[in-house]
Amino acid sequence: MENPSIPKGTRDFSSIEMNKRNYLIQVIRNKFELFGFSPIETPSFEKISTLMGKYGKEGDYLMFKLLHSGDFLKKGISNFWRRKKEDPDPFNNQELMEHISNKALRYDLTVPFVRYVVMHRNEIFFPFKGYQIQPVWRADKPQKERFREFYQCDADMIGSYSLSSLWQEVEFIQLCDEIFTELNFPIIININHRDILGGLVEISGIENHLWKDFTTSLDKWDKKGRNIVKKEMLRKGISSNSFEKIACFFDMKENFSKKIESLTVALQSSERGKKGIKDLRFIFQKIKNISLKKTKLKWNVSLARGMNYYTGPIFEISPDNNGPCIANSIGGGGRYDQLASFFGMKNFSGVGVSLGLDRIYIAMEKENLFSTISSSPSKVLFINFGDEEVLYAYKMINFLRRKGISTQLYPNAVKINKQFRYANNNHIPFIISIGKNEIEKKKIRVKNLKTRTETEYNNIQEVAHQLMKKNP
Amino acid sequence: MENPSIPKGTRDFSSIEMNKRNYLIQVIRNKFELFGFSPIETPSFEKISTLMGKYGKEGDYLMFKLLHSGDFLKKGISNFWRRKKEDPDPFNNQELMEHISNKALRYDLTVPFVRYVVMHRNEIFFPFKGYQIQPVWRADKPQKERFREFYQCDADMIGSYSLSSLWQEVEFIQLCDEIFTELNFPIIININHRDILGGLVEISGIENHLWKDFTTSLDKWDKKGRNIVKKEMLRKGISSNSFEKIACFFDMKENFSKKIESLTVALQSSERGKKGIKDLRFIFQKIKNISLKKTKLKWNVSLARGMNYYTGPIFEISPDNNGPCIANSIGGGGRYDQLASFFGMKNFSGVGVSLGLDRIYIAMEKENLFSTISSSPSKVLFINFGDEEVLYAYKMINFLRRKGISTQLYPNAVKINKQFRYANNNHIPFIISIGKNEIEKKKIRVKNLKTRTETEYNNIQEVAHQLMKKNP
Repeated sequence: MENPSIPKGTRDFSSIEMNKRNYLIQVIRNKFELFGFSPIETPSFEKISTLMGKYGKEGDYLMFKLLHSGDFLKKGISNFWRRKKEDPDPFNNQELMEHISNKALRYDLTVPFVRYVVMHRNEIFFPFKGYQIQPVWRADKPQKERFREFYQCDADMIGSYSLSSLWQEVEFIQLCDEIFTELNFPIIININHRDILGGLVEISGIENHLWKDFTTSLDKWDKKGRNIVKKEMLRKGISSNSFEKIACFFDMKENFSKKIESLTVALQSSERGKKGIKDLRFIFQKIKNISLKKTKLKWNVSLARGMNYYTGPIFEISPDNNGPCIANSIGGGGRYDQLASFFGMKNFSGVGVSLGLDRIYIAMEKENLFSTISSSPSKVLFINFGDEEVLYAYKMINFLRRKGISTQLYPNAVKINKQFRYANNNHIPFIISIGKNEIEKKKIRVKNLKTRTETEYNNIQEVAHQLMKKNP
Repeated sequence: MENPSIPKGTRDFSSIEMNKRNYLIQVIRNKFELFGFSPIETPSFEKISTLMGKYGKEGDYLMFKLLHSGDFLKKGISNFWRRKKEDPDPFNNQELMEHISNKALRYDLTVPFVRYVVMHRNEIFFPFKGYQIQPVWRADKPQKERFREFYQCDADMIGSYSLSSLWQEVEFIQLCDEIFTELNFPIIININHRDILGGLVEISGIENHLWKDFTTSLDKWDKKGRNIVKKEMLRKGISSNSFEKIACFFDMKENFSKKIESLTVALQSSERGKKGIKDLRFIFQKIKNISLKKTKLKWNVSLARGMNYYTGPIFEISPDNNGPCIANSIGGGGRYDQLASFFGMKNFSGVGVSLGLDRIYIAMEKENLFSTISSSPSKVLFINFGDEEVLYAYKMINFLRRKGISTQLYPNAVKINKQFRYANNNHIPFIISIGKNEIEKKKIRVKNLKTRTETEYNNIQEVAHQLMKKNP
């Protein structure tokens, strides 16, 4: 039998990694709830019809589809064979697909969230504030730090247009500031507005049907640079003339007021563009007044966001470490005004943030920000000297556990140094030995593996008291 | 557009449900760590070769398989067509499958756990104690309280035979007692031993190759009764004579000592059977000495467990409410001595428990055991009177949040009674109003929605102080 392995692009997480991941999740969950978001969960897979067409071409392509199971699969395949016999035309893969699969693993948490809200609209109260911390799956080409299964932490707020306001964007920026301040991890929030991009497209003369191509290419500006983006846009049918008319705005290095000035002039003929500028002005003014703890808010005119569904203000989060900005995105979000209408609920507006747990983990690991997370839950190991001794000691084990002290019993009476090595390797700081001698003398021998000192106690209450001190 | 829906057998979880589920997970996680288990996580899907053949026929059949993605799928299908052209034989579905899928969602957490341990055997220290709380997927026929996606909470311990002992079983029984005592939910642990069943098969004359059929059918004894099990066994080729030789033992209602007596006599010719009796005697003696808080330990000779991989003591947990026992299983576990050897690691023994989060949830809901779980994380709603007032109030919002008080701002300045209704519907107990009047008078108006009283405060510190009291 060959060595077992796992599918490409997936990962196992060790206890050391899990303790750090659980710490991150706990901080994010606490802050989500502090801002009034309530937890929900949706199934790992959705109907393909729910997911398709919401993300853009790439998203549709990268979905993991599930095969029908058992008898359904057999029936599907035999129906397909039958159809094929009746129809001599060369059939395509799409036709086979429809017979063997109608479910797919979710690609993000936003589309399932909106599907949830529409489906349960008569049970929930609007505006609805929900959060989800769950894995998503993408059949991306596996490469360094790009995984096929990864966790997202999403908080979203959705309500009718009339219940909605730009205070929601202000709240989400505050929320991110709170989370990353707690993590001691300074960030930059890059913000932009789809309507400003819409306005620029209007004044540039780029045709409407090229909008998606335009945003997809523009989103690579920070990572790939002007020349590659230009080439890609030209290849997609955007004229060089149109490109040059607006390219200068994507490189603007000026502060917020200067950018507002230039764009107000440039977009004076575009109602859409003017709306975008008004919105961003509101957000920046309020944030300036309320102030942020550690976070920098920056207007990045080249930010476009990959997903199709964004409509208003959009933002992306990157570590504040002088690296390239959007290239290192650890999260993002924005406003999506149309997504609910795809599911038949009109005039609803959503805003949300999505944090990439794995990206945050990697970035924090690089900055050595996990140093205080303990690597083992266990505090005590009881040495196993044999059945009789263990039976005597078990009441003490129970006592310590009742006090909330994580306690282990070595499962078998093997050599003592083997048992000591186990404690050492697993970072268990204390060893308690109850051998024949201790039973006779009614003593408890506790060894501190850090200080390499040994102390004798008269009863387990004393031991518990000592172990519960901050630095025992 | 039709109303959106989710795949059969899957569920959405509302905030009220999630708060209860998170409470359960928190209790189970804490107790796992109290007993020295460390968290690990494995990917949602594994290679089909990892999962296949470990669970028995039913398990293999009920796995959710994932289609190759994007180009891999295209290539797989076209390879299949090409082969088909070369080979005029009628091809079967199995052949198509091999071209389009090599991954499947995990069916339980035990097989991935053992795969993890074998794969990382050089990085971890034995005996290894790990736990996982994650969903699993089964393409079961959807029916009441049987789901296609559900959470399992598994704790497992694995090590070489020489490091292993029956103290591990004692520990797992203690662990379950701790968990369900904390949940205030009395349980029965039904225990049995695969070697006792093996001994009974030996003395009955049932042929070896019918072992799996025998255990699968026997496992239905408590749920379906003697007659149905007998019919099923006869259909599978077990003789009526063999069945009758041992059937009396599965109905034994006597206490532990009486059962030991009868079976010791019956199994005196079976080494395997005697080993099973010796093991159970050890476990019962130790548990009797240490004692359990709320849990009853019962020997149920008809307990067989569905999975192929169990070898030694096995157990199943049911609520202690006078209902049918195994029919209401909310968890179970046992010892598996061969599983690691399937992955090439010889002479390793594992023991584990698997708790069904959804089963526990349903059982506790029926007994109304969640009454103390709060339904909303939020404590305060700030009424939105307009941008100017919100900007003034935002410093107070920040102050309360910094104190850990979950605080919401209504996103828009709609009618006050609409905002009050939102707080009521979402079980937010306090409303703070900062209108023009309050700004002028420098007062803070706090309404307690439970007592329907209103209090004026001079500063936010006073408000925070009041809200942080246990019954403000």
